[in-house]
Amino acid sequence: MTVVALSGGVGGAKLSLGLYRALPADALQVVVNTGDDFDLLHLRICPDLDTALYTLGDREHREQGWGRRDESWDLMGTLESLGEPMWFKLGDADTALHVLRTHRLRSGIRLTEVIDDVRRQFGIRARILPMTDCTVATRVETDDGELAFQEYFVRRRCEPRVRAIRFEGAATAHTTAEVLAALDAPELEAIVLCPSNPYLSIDPLLAVPDLRAALEKRRVPLIAVSPLIGNTAVKGPTAKIMAELGVASSATAIAAHYAGLIDALVIDTIDAQHAAHLPIPAFATQTLMRTLDDRVRLAEFVLARARELGR
Amino acid sequence: MTVVALSGGVGGAKLSLGLYRALPADALQVVVNTGDDFDLLHLRICPDLDTALYTLGDREHREQGWGRRDESWDLMGTLESLGEPMWFKLGDADTALHVLRTHRLRSGIRLTEVIDDVRRQFGIRARILPMTDCTVATRVETDDGELAFQEYFVRRRCEPRVRAIRFEGAATAHTTAEVLAALDAPELEAIVLCPSNPYLSIDPLLAVPDLRAALEKRRVPLIAVSPLIGNTAVKGPTAKIMAELGVASSATAIAAHYAGLIDALVIDTIDAQHAAHLPIPAFATQTLMRTLDDRVRLAEFVLARARELGR
Repeated sequence: MTVVALSGGVGGAKLSLGLYRALPADALQVVVNTGDDFDLLHLRICPDLDTALYTLGDREHREQGWGRRDESWDLMGTLESLGEPMWFKLGDADTALHVLRTHRLRSGIRLTEVIDDVRRQFGIRARILPMTDCTVATRVETDDGELAFQEYFVRRRCEPRVRAIRFEGAATAHTTAEVLAALDAPELEAIVLCPSNPYLSIDPLLAVPDLRAALEKRRVPLIAVSPLIGNTAVKGPTAKIMAELGVASSATAIAAHYAGLIDALVIDTIDAQHAAHLPIPAFATQTLMRTLDDRVRLAEFVLARARELGR
Repeated sequence: MTVVALSGGVGGAKLSLGLYRALPADALQVVVNTGDDFDLLHLRICPDLDTALYTLGDREHREQGWGRRDESWDLMGTLESLGEPMWFKLGDADTALHVLRTHRLRSGIRLTEVIDDVRRQFGIRARILPMTDCTVATRVETDDGELAFQEYFVRRRCEPRVRAIRFEGAATAHTTAEVLAALDAPELEAIVLCPSNPYLSIDPLLAVPDLRAALEKRRVPLIAVSPLIGNTAVKGPTAKIMAELGVASSATAIAAHYAGLIDALVIDTIDAQHAAHLPIPAFATQTLMRTLDDRVRLAEFVLARARELGR
């Protein structure tokens, strides 16, 4: 039996790691947002894919939420000394991956194949699949004008007020044969929508028409995990963006956001009182993932609920 | 008064440093071979320009003859762990320069401007000028077939027997306004042809038609320093290549190689007996440059001879 996870950055990678440990090694396929991808110094950078690779490959920096452990910074220091303003951090080992990816993409290799080779070299037995090999770019319309995603997220630290978010190129993009095969596999048991930012990290996946269509015609339960605990997000600007978009930041609003797509929602114990008001089944548990045990336990909870729904 | 040096890699950079120290800080302009330039992992690498930048910028590795001092290797180690065969060494700080150069070239900035900005950031007051902004690629015809320069020089360690050397793109290349201005400056006092490999490092400069023409119509002495001491080169394959091309490796052969172009040749004391047989003036001195003092002393010797010739 296999499971597909839909993931953005850190929160998604944490639950993906829990699923990877909770399932047989080859059973997990993680479909990852590529709307954050961008070019820096003509290097192609894919933050969410790299977070997935580093997290499942046991190389992630556990505190800072991006990049690698035991990283060195000589390349970036030299770039700064040569007059390049480095608002996006480029560790030496991290940059190796950017250089390799850029080289292989320019050589005509698909992003899906590039990432698949890296995850093998990292010893990861789960599949890590870009949501598309086409270029999709998340653009954030703010009070300070429209910003490219990394401009908004890293350079401006999510400070400008968000008015709208769009996914440039998504309407004409298509997902990959690998993603469609994963979603159509006879052995597929469940689809897990990870607790990533719905607006910035999951919506880009849903904006790719044939990926959305494949999710809608699934034959298995699609269960989401809310990124909110109480009225706030563990990390990142989810609650801030919901407020700016005029949406109450609550489990109810998350369920409404995914209405028509998900079969059930896993919410935090602290939000259990919302369960009765939701139009879909809601299951409360501790969703904060501090330790590896937390991740595995949440993954097992989500898988158990999905299996019950699938009966 | 100004001086132009024509330089290849290590030997040329050593004498360039001597000239830089022997002259007023702004007086030196070094025209550097770009025939060795190549793309590795879609990064543009210019070995001789970088050797000049690192040497004049006091960042060069003093023993190994390439790259930077105090270099770290995390990026290359990661590339190797990801399955890339790294036959060309990429230090972390060195790669910063390759990334910056590739980025700026792809942004439409000329190589001359890219290098000029880096040399300013390095605090170098001499000008370091690429021989051309066009693409010229040194190709080595060997018993094992034709090889790109770095394939021959680094990957194959100069082992294949050389039959001929050609400079792809040179015939249609042109030098830069900066190089032409340096060679045509009223304040120009001398042109120094550095002790780099004549076949691999200096011939590419001479193969660029308007650069060759500018050298031929010069109004100042052009004095060369032989790269041979006795019948061998201090470093690199000069003597080996001369033997493979059927040329005796001697000061006489160096003079013959540059016949019609140079006004005088500086040779090592050990080769003083050749002086009488040369068709041009030859001046013997210690040409081995072990220390900075050696470099400055040789530079002063060369400049003094050039000034005498210019009277």
